[in-house]
Amino acid sequence: MPALPDKHLSSQFDTELSALSTRVLEMGGMAETQVAQAVAALVEFDVAATHAVLQQEFQLNRLDVEIDRDLSSIIARRQPTARDLRLLIAISKMVGNLERIGDEAVRIARAAGRVMGSMEGAGGRLPVKDLSFEAGLATRQLRQALDAFARLDTSAALAVLKADDQLDQEFDGLLRKLITYMMEDPRTISAAIDLVFVAKAIERIGDHAKNLAEVVIYVVKGTDVRHNTIENVESLVR
Amino acid sequence: MPALPDKHLSSQFDTELSALSTRVLEMGGMAETQVAQAVAALVEFDVAATHAVLQQEFQLNRLDVEIDRDLSSIIARRQPTARDLRLLIAISKMVGNLERIGDEAVRIARAAGRVMGSMEGAGGRLPVKDLSFEAGLATRQLRQALDAFARLDTSAALAVLKADDQLDQEFDGLLRKLITYMMEDPRTISAAIDLVFVAKAIERIGDHAKNLAEVVIYVVKGTDVRHNTIENVESLVR
Repeated sequence: MPALPDKHLSSQFDTELSALSTRVLEMGGMAETQVAQAVAALVEFDVAATHAVLQQEFQLNRLDVEIDRDLSSIIARRQPTARDLRLLIAISKMVGNLERIGDEAVRIARAAGRVMGSMEGAGGRLPVKDLSFEAGLATRQLRQALDAFARLDTSAALAVLKADDQLDQEFDGLLRKLITYMMEDPRTISAAIDLVFVAKAIERIGDHAKNLAEVVIYVVKGTDVRHNTIENVESLVR
Repeated sequence: MPALPDKHLSSQFDTELSALSTRVLEMGGMAETQVAQAVAALVEFDVAATHAVLQQEFQLNRLDVEIDRDLSSIIARRQPTARDLRLLIAISKMVGNLERIGDEAVRIARAAGRVMGSMEGAGGRLPVKDLSFEAGLATRQLRQALDAFARLDTSAALAVLKADDQLDQEFDGLLRKLITYMMEDPRTISAAIDLVFVAKAIERIGDHAKNLAEVVIYVVKGTDVRHNTIENVESLVR
């Protein structure tokens, strides 16, 4: 739960803000689980697990709408300024990113379902397990970004921004590898394209984690660091 | 200042709100141009045009940050409620979607740059022009969503939501077509994968147009229609 140093007269307002932050962190935990399950479903050829991911999507969407509604209601009733307003705007952006992470998990689960159908043929040779490694990087960044928010820790947020390059490189390597499989055996093309989409979805989850980390810096420093170089962000955070 | 009901005494506030809406529409026009240019660059093998798209990205990112900052400042100073607050929240969501449309345009331009390098070989046979048709659908939906916002027209917004299926089908057809090219001539695989990414980026632009249309309905009706069936939205709008 984020520490809120600004004093407001209303301790009821504090309670509302921290309840909202807690729900965002819950939503973040759900998104993280959803991604991990979608990738596990693919790697373990588990059709039932892909359905579970699609089910969870409803919960995530519901939270998205509920938290957004609560945000509007709090802004209208409390008329926050300064850091409280920043926190509310930040929560709105976080919820948007978490919802999109859920969408990526659904894309992974759907691709997993299609791939399973074709993996018994030539697709069986594709390097599905390599995607686990990429997904591990992405979910770690997501968890770190959520932790950074929970502790309002800008150094941890900066670490997430810095880690994104590694994920991009991992994606590029996977893409190249999948292309060689396709070239060697054109019967793998359909399944391999689905794996390319999975790899891309995982890379995007890393982008969303990066967005979450930028939001943490915005709450603490009051500066919007999007579209900035990592060097600029680094000098701000230090 | 005491809380004011729906009508505000301050015509200055009205001026601020409409200035902000105008800037969002400007940003929308820029995003639309950027997408059209990125696709034209690909279809016409125009390297200079891909650079132009990357240049425009800076402007779009700057507008993104500026409008967001103005939004926070207006909320803090004016303490809006009801429809004014909804409009401000809507603008925040629109700006986020328009910025992501710009990101997709950049992805298209980058893929175009890579594809041009390989199109002189076997890639020259790929159906690049088919992507123009898909892009035409997406930019039309984007323009309609922006028009719907300018006129706060929920029927026009609903039409955008309904049109998304056609774009999804177009993407599926393109994907299947590109896979047949890859299977027939594995030397086309690298370039064809880039075209798959372009087709996907265009399809996502349609998704963002859909998000913009949902925002219009939220402003007018006060209902968050995301994650709803088209039938539910239709009965709300009528």
